[in-house]
Amino acid sequence: MIKRRKTRNFHIGPLKIGSEAPVIIQSMTKVDTQNITAVLKQIKDLTQAGCELVRIAVPTLKDSKALRKIIEQTETPLIADIHFSPSRAIEAIEAGAAKIRLNPGNIKNKKDILRIIDAAKAHNTAVRIGVNEASIRDLKRQTVPPAKRIKLMLNEMKKYVRIFENRSFAQLVLSAKSSDCLRNIKINRLIAEHFDYPLHLGLTHAGLPEDAQIPSAISIGSLLADGIGDTIRVSVAGNPVMEIEIAKQILTSLGLYHSAKPELIVCPTCGRAQIDVIKLAKKVKKALSKIEKPLRIAVMGCVVNGPGEAEDADIALCAAKNKAYLYKNGRRIATIAEKNIIPELLKHLENI
Amino acid sequence: MIKRRKTRNFHIGPLKIGSEAPVIIQSMTKVDTQNITAVLKQIKDLTQAGCELVRIAVPTLKDSKALRKIIEQTETPLIADIHFSPSRAIEAIEAGAAKIRLNPGNIKNKKDILRIIDAAKAHNTAVRIGVNEASIRDLKRQTVPPAKRIKLMLNEMKKYVRIFENRSFAQLVLSAKSSDCLRNIKINRLIAEHFDYPLHLGLTHAGLPEDAQIPSAISIGSLLADGIGDTIRVSVAGNPVMEIEIAKQILTSLGLYHSAKPELIVCPTCGRAQIDVIKLAKKVKKALSKIEKPLRIAVMGCVVNGPGEAEDADIALCAAKNKAYLYKNGRRIATIAEKNIIPELLKHLENI
Repeated sequence: MIKRRKTRNFHIGPLKIGSEAPVIIQSMTKVDTQNITAVLKQIKDLTQAGCELVRIAVPTLKDSKALRKIIEQTETPLIADIHFSPSRAIEAIEAGAAKIRLNPGNIKNKKDILRIIDAAKAHNTAVRIGVNEASIRDLKRQTVPPAKRIKLMLNEMKKYVRIFENRSFAQLVLSAKSSDCLRNIKINRLIAEHFDYPLHLGLTHAGLPEDAQIPSAISIGSLLADGIGDTIRVSVAGNPVMEIEIAKQILTSLGLYHSAKPELIVCPTCGRAQIDVIKLAKKVKKALSKIEKPLRIAVMGCVVNGPGEAEDADIALCAAKNKAYLYKNGRRIATIAEKNIIPELLKHLENI
Repeated sequence: MIKRRKTRNFHIGPLKIGSEAPVIIQSMTKVDTQNITAVLKQIKDLTQAGCELVRIAVPTLKDSKALRKIIEQTETPLIADIHFSPSRAIEAIEAGAAKIRLNPGNIKNKKDILRIIDAAKAHNTAVRIGVNEASIRDLKRQTVPPAKRIKLMLNEMKKYVRIFENRSFAQLVLSAKSSDCLRNIKINRLIAEHFDYPLHLGLTHAGLPEDAQIPSAISIGSLLADGIGDTIRVSVAGNPVMEIEIAKQILTSLGLYHSAKPELIVCPTCGRAQIDVIKLAKKVKKALSKIEKPLRIAVMGCVVNGPGEAEDADIALCAAKNKAYLYKNGRRIATIAEKNIIPELLKHLENI
């Protein structure tokens, strides 16, 4: 079990965030904010997929007006994504956003920040301070070598947090993102050392779905494995529902999300296997798709690790020549001829 | 850049392993070892995909004989995967395997181990001590609670390593695998603390390809990010070539592998985007598929992080309404109408 890093705990709308709450899955809409019907449809799709917080870009006054209407028509807590414009931040707070995201790279005027803090306090709105490696360099108008960027990001964060703390505002979520896997891990470890606010994790600009999964899993997953991270957003250049699927897989792998669907462990097979384990595993997966129970099922190809994995599984199949041994909670309870494996497995699954 | 954990360095056949060498990608054949033609075909496919070391199961005497013939017909260094039988280990060494893998869970007799060590020394064969969580429990014939397994694995490793060290054998690679992401990270951190031998990393029994990628990336990736790991094997219940693709993606994400193919950074898009960034990114990816240069290309949807990401990219496209700005090494050098983006991009790529 992961020991979460201790953070402050508070609410974002109806949702609790921090070390005492589960890690929150979030995403972002990818349609024109002013197309209210399309936004609401995407929020619904995301929520049904398991997304608990949805962020929306609010670049113009018209978008702020659309945001107000969207908030009126959904139960899902929303985050307004603010860049450049303090007015957008205040409009979003007044429209009822559960949280706003500010980028220290592009809202720098202290008076503006104080006005935003006061509005957020008055409306009980949470604020994410979202530092992006690419944004920081942008405003410096000069290239900063990679080794120096981490320090720069941490300093930007410190300066910004201080303004909020001096105004006694504590409902802060912090994030620092890079498109580089390693710098993303490093900066977040530093942020976690320096602050006790909940952290939002994400690898930014990760790419098309087939390219984004692995670097996102490494970056977000290795931080979570060390107890760092209270909400995650997987960035994929594709349908945002895919972001939720990947986020759930990351959390499930680390025991931070408990799916109602069975988990399937399969040995990779080798020259020892005496039946086609991969074919069998695919059949088992298909059979499991109808089951809505949080079970652990193992499909193993031989005796090297088969009985051992069976001990951790609710049901395990250890394949042998023309047959499979069926284990329940580590105990071998049946020997099944190859052609009967799936129906027999289903029978045992129904009885659990 | 990752600072690799300092290890001993030696050769496995023609390959150097350890902190002074690149991380080695390995896999395993999944066809009947006695089907020599099929094994050679799979070794060839794996090698062409980027696999540098191939492991083969050798459960019977007939497999040992097949292994000898396979070794005669391939240049790729091979690892014999040995379980239960000390004779198989010695046969594999004498057949010319570059390395053998022993499982302390199922070869326990000290005399047998010493005989194997002497043979390995005589033939300059490397040995991997591969502890598996599932194997250890198997031989104990009792269920060990998860919290205690890590200690048990470490103790098994210590006992085994001591036998090798007392016999002055140092060409050891160590591995400890679990099918649980978190325990896999923990046990490998411990092994890395206790020993200075090169480490082999893998998450065992990860599952079908779509299920295996994310937990493998988290487990292997987070260890590599901390400098731990000298050779990796991704386990997927599928074509072993997929294991190589995933391994390469993990290493590339961490700057440990330098692909000849362009890397594509894409912003996930949001309500700010004024053109279809995902469609554009897919077109760019297709155009890049013909390019064999180690370039970094960014496709970004707006000005928030676009110019910043452009600084790290060889070529970046920042999309705006009906057009895109093209950046080369961070400098904006052209404004391109939407319909001309791909041909213009290709022209610039050719000039690099």
